[in-house]
Amino acid sequence: MYVIGEKINGMFKKVNQAIKERNSAFIKELALQQIEAGSDALDVNVGPESVNPLQDMKWLITTIREVTNAPLAIDTTKPEIMEEGLKIAGENSFINSTHADNEKLDIYVPMAKKYNAKLIALTISKSGVPQDTAGKMELVTNIIQKCIEYEYDISNLYIDPVILPVNVAQQNATAVLEVIQQIKLVSEPPPKTLLGLSNVSQGTKYRSLIDRTYAVLALASGLDSAILNPLDRELMDAIITAELCLGKQLYCDSFLEAYRKK
Amino acid sequence: MYVIGEKINGMFKKVNQAIKERNSAFIKELALQQIEAGSDALDVNVGPESVNPLQDMKWLITTIREVTNAPLAIDTTKPEIMEEGLKIAGENSFINSTHADNEKLDIYVPMAKKYNAKLIALTISKSGVPQDTAGKMELVTNIIQKCIEYEYDISNLYIDPVILPVNVAQQNATAVLEVIQQIKLVSEPPPKTLLGLSNVSQGTKYRSLIDRTYAVLALASGLDSAILNPLDRELMDAIITAELCLGKQLYCDSFLEAYRKK
Repeated sequence: MYVIGEKINGMFKKVNQAIKERNSAFIKELALQQIEAGSDALDVNVGPESVNPLQDMKWLITTIREVTNAPLAIDTTKPEIMEEGLKIAGENSFINSTHADNEKLDIYVPMAKKYNAKLIALTISKSGVPQDTAGKMELVTNIIQKCIEYEYDISNLYIDPVILPVNVAQQNATAVLEVIQQIKLVSEPPPKTLLGLSNVSQGTKYRSLIDRTYAVLALASGLDSAILNPLDRELMDAIITAELCLGKQLYCDSFLEAYRKK
Repeated sequence: MYVIGEKINGMFKKVNQAIKERNSAFIKELALQQIEAGSDALDVNVGPESVNPLQDMKWLITTIREVTNAPLAIDTTKPEIMEEGLKIAGENSFINSTHADNEKLDIYVPMAKKYNAKLIALTISKSGVPQDTAGKMELVTNIIQKCIEYEYDISNLYIDPVILPVNVAQQNATAVLEVIQQIKLVSEPPPKTLLGLSNVSQGTKYRSLIDRTYAVLALASGLDSAILNPLDRELMDAIITAELCLGKQLYCDSFLEAYRKK
């Protein structure tokens, strides 16, 4: 599975503080820790308290780029910050994210194409977050149609069927697993699938247990990618072991260590 | 998932000793521990070193029946011991197990019918253990045909597609997941599916991690039942959480505790 580390996000208190204080050592260390723990890419989000989000985003990206060339997922709702972020983060970045409404897709699909970026698209529209399979798939279809219209390479599209906390929307959790399977059937090549995993356990008593169990269920359904906490060792162990059992990695006695050294 | 506790098996040194010494307190305690940990039924196996397996089996069943009426899975390769076991264990017992050859099925299917027992049938024949999906499904078909021939209720049939250790037969692990899904399509009502879970991690370095990860993958594929170690708390936690995320149990904050008190 393609792992996008979620930790560089201003919603975390220490990260918010590091951004305010321009503590580049802290950010660099957090970037490297996530890579060492098995991240393929890193999410970058200035957080809700940022007073100058454009400057903060630029500083974060520049700081991270001093220690790693890993792809970055530029995580903002503002198109102008997205575009500036893409300019300095380089190719193979992720746009994180667009909703499924045409007015959003008409901004972000061309932007993804222009900057050769991957595009994360959520099954959310102005009408809300559909919680059933049919409602989610309707938005999936709209997203794919827009990508075809703009001749955007569907294999660079990452559709996120939006997992909600299992304590408030339990049936949504099973619908998401169905959508992960169905997405693979709607186009050739199919889009990738992605989850913002940690959301599944928001507000629950056993967060890590729910995260790692749901990750394995989603992998069994064919999930390609997730934004998650790579520093949760038990979560990463579960993911690595699931991929082993699904035949996506060759067995060796020290398969956990081998994966992390990859 | 229907859990059959695996611990009362003479292959475990302490159990073997308890059988030899007729230490009924040890066996009763082990039975109750497994029930409290979430087992629905208990496997009973005298082990390979038993000198008088018929007497040992009778003693084990009688001893367990002093503390619980939970269904028992009579685990022996000898038809005469199986039949004596079924007589004293009572209805809803499991025959554990038959192979997929006609000469075995012609013994065990009628026996299962006569004693109103559930039947565990392995996808193993005289030719060996097929490791690919097609080979396993061929044996599944033969098992089901024999059950139809004897008018045995297919919903009491538990087919075990035989998981092999992932360190020696990695592709078998993915084939088993496919077979679990396909079995549900071959008859109406479909047979149940069952795994002897612990075998997947035999000889590996991270046994419990592999067991619990594979259990979640199998649950995502629709697994109904497993023979496993219910005293592995992390394994049971993973199973309970997977069932929660699959919508088979209602969420409450203390869902782990609620399941165990069921």
